Amino acid sequence: MVGASRSTEGAGPIRLGMVGGGQGAFIGAVHRIAARLDGEFRLVAGALSSDPDRARASATMLGLEPERSYASYEEMARSEAGRADGIEAVAIVTPNHLHFGPAKAFLEAGIHVICDKPLTATLEEAKELAAIAERSDALFILTHNYTGYPMVRQARQMVADGALGELRVVQAEYAQDWLTEKAEATGSKQAEWRTDPARSGAGGATGDIGTHAYNLLRFVTGLELDALAADLDAFVEGRRVDDNAHVMLRFRGGAKGMLWASQVAPGNENSLRLRVYGTAGGLEWWQEDPNRLWYTPFGQEKRLITRGGAGSLPAAARVSRIPPGHPEGYLEGFANIYAEAARAIRAARQGPAELPQDVVFPTVRDGVEGVAFVDACVRSSKNDGAWTKLSI
Amino acid sequence: MVGASRSTEGAGPIRLGMVGGGQGAFIGAVHRIAARLDGEFRLVAGALSSDPDRARASATMLGLEPERSYASYEEMARSEAGRADGIEAVAIVTPNHLHFGPAKAFLEAGIHVICDKPLTATLEEAKELAAIAERSDALFILTHNYTGYPMVRQARQMVADGALGELRVVQAEYAQDWLTEKAEATGSKQAEWRTDPARSGAGGATGDIGTHAYNLLRFVTGLELDALAADLDAFVEGRRVDDNAHVMLRFRGGAKGMLWASQVAPGNENSLRLRVYGTAGGLEWWQEDPNRLWYTPFGQEKRLITRGGAGSLPAAARVSRIPPGHPEGYLEGFANIYAEAARAIRAARQGPAELPQDVVFPTVRDGVEGVAFVDACVRSSKNDGAWTKLSI
Amino acid sequence: MVGASRSTEGAGPIRLGMVGGGQGAFIGAVHRIAARLDGEFRLVAGALSSDPDRARASATMLGLEPERSYASYEEMARSEAGRADGIEAVAIVTPNHLHFGPAKAFLEAGIHVICDKPLTATLEEAKELAAIAERSDALFILTHNYTGYPMVRQARQMVADGALGELRVVQAEYAQDWLTEKAEATGSKQAEWRTDPARSGAGGATGDIGTHAYNLLRFVTGLELDALAADLDAFVEGRRVDDNAHVMLRFRGGAKGMLWASQVAPGNENSLRLRVYGTAGGLEWWQEDPNRLWYTPFGQEKRLITRGGAGSLPAAARVSRIPPGHPEGYLEGFANIYAEAARAIRAARQGPAELPQDVVFPTVRDGVEGVAFVDACVRSSKNDGAWTKLSI
Amino acid sequence: MVGASRSTEGAGPIRLGMVGGGQGAFIGAVHRIAARLDGEFRLVAGALSSDPDRARASATMLGLEPERSYASYEEMARSEAGRADGIEAVAIVTPNHLHFGPAKAFLEAGIHVICDKPLTATLEEAKELAAIAERSDALFILTHNYTGYPMVRQARQMVADGALGELRVVQAEYAQDWLTEKAEATGSKQAEWRTDPARSGAGGATGDIGTHAYNLLRFVTGLELDALAADLDAFVEGRRVDDNAHVMLRFRGGAKGMLWASQVAPGNENSLRLRVYGTAGGLEWWQEDPNRLWYTPFGQEKRLITRGGAGSLPAAARVSRIPPGHPEGYLEGFANIYAEAARAIRAARQGPAELPQDVVFPTVRDGVEGVAFVDACVRSSKNDGAWTKLSI
Repeated sequence: MVGASRSTEGAGPIRLGMVGGGQGAFIGAVHRIAARLDGEFRLVAGALSSDPDRARASATMLGLEPERSYASYEEMARSEAGRADGIEAVAIVTPNHLHFGPAKAFLEAGIHVICDKPLTATLEEAKELAAIAERSDALFILTHNYTGYPMVRQARQMVADGALGELRVVQAEYAQDWLTEKAEATGSKQAEWRTDPARSGAGGATGDIGTHAYNLLRFVTGLELDALAADLDAFVEGRRVDDNAHVMLRFRGGAKGMLWASQVAPGNENSLRLRVYGTAGGLEWWQEDPNRLWYTPFGQEKRLITRGGAGSLPAAARVSRIPPGHPEGYLEGFANIYAEAARAIRAARQGPAELPQDVVFPTVRDGVEGVAFVDACVRSSKNDGAWTKLSI
Repeated sequence: MVGASRSTEGAGPIRLGMVGGGQGAFIGAVHRIAARLDGEFRLVAGALSSDPDRARASATMLGLEPERSYASYEEMARSEAGRADGIEAVAIVTPNHLHFGPAKAFLEAGIHVICDKPLTATLEEAKELAAIAERSDALFILTHNYTGYPMVRQARQMVADGALGELRVVQAEYAQDWLTEKAEATGSKQAEWRTDPARSGAGGATGDIGTHAYNLLRFVTGLELDALAADLDAFVEGRRVDDNAHVMLRFRGGAKGMLWASQVAPGNENSLRLRVYGTAGGLEWWQEDPNRLWYTPFGQEKRLITRGGAGSLPAAARVSRIPPGHPEGYLEGFANIYAEAARAIRAARQGPAELPQDVVFPTVRDGVEGVAFVDACVRSSKNDGAWTKLSI
Repeated sequence: MVGASRSTEGAGPIRLGMVGGGQGAFIGAVHRIAARLDGEFRLVAGALSSDPDRARASATMLGLEPERSYASYEEMARSEAGRADGIEAVAIVTPNHLHFGPAKAFLEAGIHVICDKPLTATLEEAKELAAIAERSDALFILTHNYTGYPMVRQARQMVADGALGELRVVQAEYAQDWLTEKAEATGSKQAEWRTDPARSGAGGATGDIGTHAYNLLRFVTGLELDALAADLDAFVEGRRVDDNAHVMLRFRGGAKGMLWASQVAPGNENSLRLRVYGTAGGLEWWQEDPNRLWYTPFGQEKRLITRGGAGSLPAAARVSRIPPGHPEGYLEGFANIYAEAARAIRAARQGPAELPQDVVFPTVRDGVEGVAFVDACVRSSKNDGAWTKLSI
Repeated sequence: MVGASRSTEGAGPIRLGMVGGGQGAFIGAVHRIAARLDGEFRLVAGALSSDPDRARASATMLGLEPERSYASYEEMARSEAGRADGIEAVAIVTPNHLHFGPAKAFLEAGIHVICDKPLTATLEEAKELAAIAERSDALFILTHNYTGYPMVRQARQMVADGALGELRVVQAEYAQDWLTEKAEATGSKQAEWRTDPARSGAGGATGDIGTHAYNLLRFVTGLELDALAADLDAFVEGRRVDDNAHVMLRFRGGAKGMLWASQVAPGNENSLRLRVYGTAGGLEWWQEDPNRLWYTPFGQEKRLITRGGAGSLPAAARVSRIPPGHPEGYLEGFANIYAEAARAIRAARQGPAELPQDVVFPTVRDGVEGVAFVDACVRSSKNDGAWTKLSI
């Protein structure tokens, strides 16, 4: 067994707080594992639930000191900002409509923000938050976690290096099946808020997973969207947001794409797939088998590039922990966002110096673009699929 | 090793002629193998090439009697119709723009026509040919060969049987890479005519392979198209027809679909893929691995249905020759169209009686729809992707 | 769609007879399709069944002239040898114990023999038949059909060309599940004779499919067996031959191998798999996905070589009919044995001249080795797995 | 996105020490991530290297207090046992020949031991260590980490529940390629000790990875070995331990197996694969795609059981963290061993009470059996592959 571990360990963990993520939440636990995995963060404070009992019980379970379990994010921001040992960063893991408030509060308190996606439930809030983030010295990291997968980094580097030549066609899709039936009517808390436009925003599948597919293609290809044409559906009777989205994409410079997001496609769990084709080659990647990247230089055999194996580039290696053939998964990819955040936060400690060049993470600008993508899809679909530009 | 052979053998082969398919042609040889595979046809006449030398040499190679190697299809139709031992059916394997003439001639001579797809190069010709075919007593079989794959038959039967519930979403794609560079400028005869609108029709990838994807989804799902929105490109500089097509589909009754056809996607050989999702389950099939069909009843494990294996239905078995685990391929699927044609032709010998109910093959109507699909794609794309109906 | 058809068509079909293969038989129909596929053979005579009624009905179904439907192979050999238009070759598709008699008869009549495998039910008969074949001017072709797959030819050529360096390790397996239960007791004709030592020989799975795996590894690697150690089982109670075989292999020169043959492995249909590893690279091939060959040059990315795609060699192309991405299957591979036989038979017509160098097919010597392999497995297993040499 | 996180968080981390694992080591970093992932352990002490400088630098990097960075494990065991806040458990991650000493020291100091595999470099030491462990109140956990994968737990439960019926055949293999060339001569530290019999023990591939394959099959099937026949090779010239092992297995009760371990198989990274077949069904699992388990009930379609998906059992769910379709990998599986250890250690805190019934981890007995497996392979191979029993 060969390979070398990453040396991000040590140097004292960063003090982290969390908003949301109390018992029963899904994504909060993921953030905590991701924060812990490389030993870079220690969770020391939280406003874990709007329900005081649940907040308290969750804090106890997580070993927080009682005085650092807060009833509200406002109180937490105020109090932690005033402590010598206050948190340096906060993870915001609430439903979409509850990102804006805490993000604003912590940014204004000078505390770095690590925020779940999509950025906000509305485009207005997204833009306002971006303005706030850009005025702040604090960092803003958006957990578009799929950008943390080593082979996604590999793909991005290969495109940047010209391995595909000039890009022509992008096929992106994210298919699930868990909303095939009306789960929001039968007690699924996750389904309830994710299909409630007041909490999730105007996009359903579009916002929940379409934004991931869109962010992924943007991250890997660097292509900039010119316009999109969308056809959204809510197939399940009475559903208030879309559960299936068909989108055609036109990029600046002439490349074209298609994007499919669905939560009603039986047999798909988290089938996020990206295929990119250019004048010189093609790449294919699938989230459910994330350690493998298929690359075909035009006119040659298809090649399998594995995480850490032959042909894998430094861009992949630096976010990789173990040897090839030992799969890394979703949590490691997610942890890479935290690891990048840690590097940025440690750099920020040194003062206004520049970030190390190779630190890569999604920012508030990606967040605005994601929300604008949802907004444009919804507008296009209402306008019979007319080609629509992002409002940014 | 277990299994049972199909009993279509015997009963004296049907006398077959061929138009096109001389030395160097690709699809002619495929038709001949398909015709031969079950022993149902014997090639006895041909107008194999417009080049007399090549016609003669091809006829010799194929063992035709010299007098039945014709200089033109007109002469062949006339002469064969007058012979007691004249051909009963003719295979037309010329480029698209040369389907109409021979098809008309043989139909009017009362000879059954087995014609390559797309039906014609223009919609006008397609409709006229349909009218001719419908007036004729002769059969018209269009070789949309992918409908001959056993697991495509299986998928169709499963949809018809309700295994997927009410259909919602269809994803169809056919990706190739052989036109990534300008092959039509470097001596590829196949590339030349397939990118020449005068010979292939207005659609490039759309006509050559998009029609296959469209026909396949129609065959399996039975869904009827309401309208489409298309975005076509000719990525290779100077190419005169599209080499990449993005299409959104709206079906009557509310189902939606996407269709992608590309000949510039490096790493794809003949990647025709169909995915169908309904309220009760999902199906996935890939032409490059055609003996397997993936079926997920919603809420249950994904299942692999193999040709001839557990869960495979009579609709698949009747076009299958060998036991499960021994792959059948493209030629067997193609041969199934010929086998169905043979059953129909033998039935037709008996007089005006009905065809056996289980004989299934694409007809001139499918051909018209395919050409109308290309026509609608081209019109929609010129009209900035406006939703467009088929002109039929 | 690109590619070129093989030009083996034409030149007048070879007159073929068949022994066995009457209605209800499996492998007879396969042989007939294989013989027909390239138009190289025409079936004109048969001794199709020992049951006169079935023989007659089968002959009628296959369009044989009544006078050339024989009651016995002896009569057929005698009669056909005396006809000016007598058969040039005969396909022997009877159960294993009935290969010897007809093979001897036709060889001695100067008629080429195409014989199903394993060669015979006993090693004595195998050796005697080899002696007869070698005395005869007639050709002897053994249908170890998996050697006909293009990517098997590719693998063989790559090994011969040194792409793998010096060979070290071979893993061969052929797993099925159809004898998991006692099918021979519940009416399966195929199971009955294949588990009857009097008809199949001393080996069950070993003879039926282990010989295929052994032949395949021999064909691809060229390695010569030094000794084997086998552990055979009949897992199903009351079964009279092995249904699972574990074998370790030692080759001359130091390479090693393992071979597994099983008919009691649920979930396996015809899972014949070969993996070969050397100092410079590795190859992997699977019969159920036969158009793909995986090749890893040591220290480089794994590559997918497809039939007809980049990296595929002339050895594969010459037994390939259609373009890459359009799968060829079992019947095409089987037909390649017939196509090779046809080339050899046509060459033989010219007199004592040498065969074209690139004609490749399994011979009586491979057949003897296969039967000797079964014999050695049985002897080793009875001798508690002692290392055992082939008796040849 | 749906799913529920495991609730192992909280309750105060267990104080952990580490022996070995200084900078540059591979497996030490893996253990630390695994220990950290669920927040159950905190690393507070270490004897990280026999090189004092490296030990010190490693301790600093890991944030240990200087006084708890020890020069030797003996000192560490003595000192930590005397502290009120001393470590409760120690992870031993040294090369194989350096497991025995520290394991003995910590067990005798009453400190729980989490030890890398194989247990020891010799069978004598293994047995002695087992005796020590069984006399001790401290727990002994062996990190046969592949038993921590959820779908391995699933497979084990399915076998135990009878989903496969009576077991007949097991195929286990672990193939790598990193020792295809003589890496031990070109500066690979990992290769050096793993091919040095004084440090790794008498088995090379057999000990390093063969033990994993053996442990995995034992864990999943519960079958007990009766005897084995082995053929070991050192293919690379001058290599002092085997780099390829072929082993046939006989289990009590009549089931049979094959096991292949290789480090010279180009194209294999960490290809650990297990296939199990019984009277009622078959299972297949591959470590490089660990979230999927293939299950075929005999006579039915093959089914894909995914981690957390339909058909997955509580035995898998309790060691799973995130929803289906989001892959968990090697580190999560490894962390499951630590999570089980944590449960056991917390239970042990309560006194002599029994462990919770569902806590599952490999113990010193599995370790002895693993070393005995290597010993038997080596003896059998030296004895020309004679059937050999484990010396336990």
